[in-house]
Amino acid sequence: MDKQKLTRRISALKGGRAELVIRNARVVNVFTDTIEEADVGIADGVVLGVGGDWQGEQEIDAAGAYLAPGLIDGHMHIESSMAHPARFADTVLRQGTTTVIADPHEIANVAGLVGIRYMLDQTEGLPLTVFFMLPSCVPATCFETSGASLSAVDLLTLAHEPRVLGLGEVMDYVAVTGADEAMLDKLLAFRDRPIDGHAPLLSGRALQAYCLAGPFSDHECSNFDEVKEKLAQGMHIQLRYGSACRGVEEIMSRVAKEGLPTERMLFCTDDKHLENIRAEGHINFILRRAVANGIPAVTALKMATLNAAGCYGLRDRGAIAPGFRADLVLFRDLKDFDVENVICGGRLFTGVQEQAAPPAPAEIARSVHLAPRKPDCLRLPVGQTMPILQLVPGEVLTTLDRRPVPQEDGCFKAGDGLVKIAVLERHHASGRIGLGVLEGLPIRGGAIATTVGHDSHNLVVAGDNDGDMLAAVDVLEECGGGYTVVSGGKTLALLPLPIAGLMSDAPLSEIFSRQQALLRAARQLGLDTDSADPFITLSFVALPVLPACRITDKGMFDVTSMSFIK
Amino acid sequence: MDKQKLTRRISALKGGRAELVIRNARVVNVFTDTIEEADVGIADGVVLGVGGDWQGEQEIDAAGAYLAPGLIDGHMHIESSMAHPARFADTVLRQGTTTVIADPHEIANVAGLVGIRYMLDQTEGLPLTVFFMLPSCVPATCFETSGASLSAVDLLTLAHEPRVLGLGEVMDYVAVTGADEAMLDKLLAFRDRPIDGHAPLLSGRALQAYCLAGPFSDHECSNFDEVKEKLAQGMHIQLRYGSACRGVEEIMSRVAKEGLPTERMLFCTDDKHLENIRAEGHINFILRRAVANGIPAVTALKMATLNAAGCYGLRDRGAIAPGFRADLVLFRDLKDFDVENVICGGRLFTGVQEQAAPPAPAEIARSVHLAPRKPDCLRLPVGQTMPILQLVPGEVLTTLDRRPVPQEDGCFKAGDGLVKIAVLERHHASGRIGLGVLEGLPIRGGAIATTVGHDSHNLVVAGDNDGDMLAAVDVLEECGGGYTVVSGGKTLALLPLPIAGLMSDAPLSEIFSRQQALLRAARQLGLDTDSADPFITLSFVALPVLPACRITDKGMFDVTSMSFIK
Repeated sequence: MDKQKLTRRISALKGGRAELVIRNARVVNVFTDTIEEADVGIADGVVLGVGGDWQGEQEIDAAGAYLAPGLIDGHMHIESSMAHPARFADTVLRQGTTTVIADPHEIANVAGLVGIRYMLDQTEGLPLTVFFMLPSCVPATCFETSGASLSAVDLLTLAHEPRVLGLGEVMDYVAVTGADEAMLDKLLAFRDRPIDGHAPLLSGRALQAYCLAGPFSDHECSNFDEVKEKLAQGMHIQLRYGSACRGVEEIMSRVAKEGLPTERMLFCTDDKHLENIRAEGHINFILRRAVANGIPAVTALKMATLNAAGCYGLRDRGAIAPGFRADLVLFRDLKDFDVENVICGGRLFTGVQEQAAPPAPAEIARSVHLAPRKPDCLRLPVGQTMPILQLVPGEVLTTLDRRPVPQEDGCFKAGDGLVKIAVLERHHASGRIGLGVLEGLPIRGGAIATTVGHDSHNLVVAGDNDGDMLAAVDVLEECGGGYTVVSGGKTLALLPLPIAGLMSDAPLSEIFSRQQALLRAARQLGLDTDSADPFITLSFVALPVLPACRITDKGMFDVTSMSFIK
Repeated sequence: MDKQKLTRRISALKGGRAELVIRNARVVNVFTDTIEEADVGIADGVVLGVGGDWQGEQEIDAAGAYLAPGLIDGHMHIESSMAHPARFADTVLRQGTTTVIADPHEIANVAGLVGIRYMLDQTEGLPLTVFFMLPSCVPATCFETSGASLSAVDLLTLAHEPRVLGLGEVMDYVAVTGADEAMLDKLLAFRDRPIDGHAPLLSGRALQAYCLAGPFSDHECSNFDEVKEKLAQGMHIQLRYGSACRGVEEIMSRVAKEGLPTERMLFCTDDKHLENIRAEGHINFILRRAVANGIPAVTALKMATLNAAGCYGLRDRGAIAPGFRADLVLFRDLKDFDVENVICGGRLFTGVQEQAAPPAPAEIARSVHLAPRKPDCLRLPVGQTMPILQLVPGEVLTTLDRRPVPQEDGCFKAGDGLVKIAVLERHHASGRIGLGVLEGLPIRGGAIATTVGHDSHNLVVAGDNDGDMLAAVDVLEECGGGYTVVSGGKTLALLPLPIAGLMSDAPLSEIFSRQQALLRAARQLGLDTDSADPFITLSFVALPVLPACRITDKGMFDVTSMSFIK
């Protein structure tokens, strides 16, 4: 900002001349915990002041609606929306979210620094402010092959980008508490900046060691005692309510009942699907649930605004006061938090303009690199018994079983509810394929496949015959990644995700209709799509940090013992 | 910090091996608002963890005393203590204050950047952490002559010193709201950092304009409504309880009664004399008064620790949790807040070692530069009436009167309770002298003088005869500044302040005994020293921002109209 600009702002304020005036609003003050009926003057992208007389070039009559600061999502991954960042922005802005703290962990696992740079570029100049935390764990583990590996030195090349705030969720808490050198390098490189934690159920001395090393927040709490212990260490608690919601309702209700201080609590979605966001809301949905669970509305709003801004040192937002960024939401009430209007950077939000996304760099536009496949590459020789990756209905958790399986010519043959699962390394065309037996996804007469395979995003395919599995692989190789269902050699449904194999460049309506088609096709193959989305299930079977059994491009993996299964 | 160090800390924590263990403490947790009986492990200057088993090289049995984070003074001026910074540190550490945010405004007005650098140097390595806010208003006004003038560019040369946090109290709110260019330069130069405010009774649009321009805190609130309005703008409220205490008791009591959120409230002393600190306490005294006024003890402790740290972005202190700096205080109870033990940076505090202060640079050691005086230089010709600077008993405020005064040969002659007051420019030997008539300090047969004359620190002298006044000037010129009382040409008492004419290099005991001698001498001249300290009164008569009448080296000044009196 220059002197001329500041002088203009001061003079506009003193003269009561605004560009935009919001009249007759019930203005939520997150500093005094009060609601005041007042007019608000806005100019040059910032709030000039609350109260007093204002003349405005443009005026909005709030007619008694509640004016709150724009909502902040404290931790999330844009890639999980599968939409281009601009379309994601449009969707959440309509729900009153004006700032998100994004961790581009998914795309970084595919395309490294190029991927992060792409997300920075694609979010530049959006009405949604997207801040970034640099992915701390790429690759997430050494038990899988990712597209890139990021060291402390790599991350430092982006550390001083204006929208980069700090270091993203430090998932590898074993490396932290084990004082792994490469991990300490990253923690020390960002030691004076926000470092997000990720430490499900970590407790006692291990939790203390984790905090001592640097991470200052956590979004993985699944019960109230965990919240209390982590808060006591000084952690900022990000109450997560995304597409998964383990325990958060109970946590909110206990926070309200037991009067735990909320200054260090904020909200986040982590991963939430766009359909859910459109149907029920985003951070405003969490506000609704917080209030339903007994948290006072203004306290909940502080968590969604000022506390989140404070956590990340964002001094320009999170409140409605002189000089604060004019990101504002008008809510009809403070119970349902339905959004009437959104103001971003001082302008009434009317939608993100649809424009063709510029071509992505090659690393992102052509991210599926498979070695040529032989027809027998999926053959799985069997012993007397075989390890079986068992899905737990309605959970992302899995279990490990071992028993005899159906076979033909010494190789596994689908049957008895068992199908084949394969993970094909898709970044370096190494030809590496992990093979296994899967229970709980009883596909009949086909295959389903995806390039969204957390966190390394290799190509995951499951099916009851090798022909359809290989055909599904071909389909995804051809379109640059996505989700597909194949039966009898024919593509029943396809959602191309050509941006790093993770995101679509299509409008939301097309994404949604293709997702519906995928679910219909899955049902044709005999899958139940009501209790769980089989495609989400597939995307998580390769994540070797979730209990208890996973499969990566290197083979079947026992998460409990952190070792590959012989 | 390096990897080896962090690895050692993690390993010590996991093994429960500390350098210092505090056993059987009631540990105050400012994150959860709870008090937990636990042992605390400390090593390498930081808290490793609270609770669990610890083996320590050294142990302290707290025997049930309350262990709180070290206290933080959010805004103060070390120079006002008149002691060398190391002696000041010793005094406040004994009261549990382990961090102060200092504004070296006084010495900067005498010696500019050299003065600030001197304070940085003299506070380096002390067990008390001294952070600095760079003085924003040197000179404080254009109506007086100071020793230096600091521009935005000057201040930026020190901005990146590790203990410099931001821009000090922006007293010239008229320049801010008037969008004065030099002021905006300073505000913009520090716009992403803390900028302390100072805006007594500023309200409405003027207050909003002030906040819009950058200052983010205020320590001048004198009533509850002022607190509420400033808090509503997002200001951090520094509740000041120094040697002056207008309104703060009432404010605390209203904060408690009306449940105003305290997250943005902290404590400060601004100016508090060492005698008072020794007698009643420092920030621990404010805690006592806060609790007496109904603020819950843990809430008050948060204000004195975590809130102050948060205000200035100090993420390494203000709480007892893994990785936080081990600045700790043991209090006997949470009512009187008497200090049992203090730990600074992980070590038990036993006193700041007395050592001869290194010689100060010439600008500081020889800061009194007066032009030669002629015997008649204090002659004050009178008209039919004369402006009279009237002291208000027991207040720093003054009033302006105008009436006929006693005279001899056409010049003012002391009598009828009126004495002469003179301000001699003492930085540039310009010979400029402001002369006036003073009521309320009825000196008989002598003169009192000082080089502590807020904020430009010219030499201020008052007396009933020119001979003693000139003799007092000679005494202070000779010793490099200080306070003196002269009668019949003889020095009755003298407190030399050779460090910039503001601070002593002597031990506290000597400072105190010389102060007592000054008061006795003042009583010999017929002054009442019970209702007010005449030396403090003298130090404030030259401050042209306090209502309603002042005198500077440029003459008698009407603060209401901001103009010199003809």
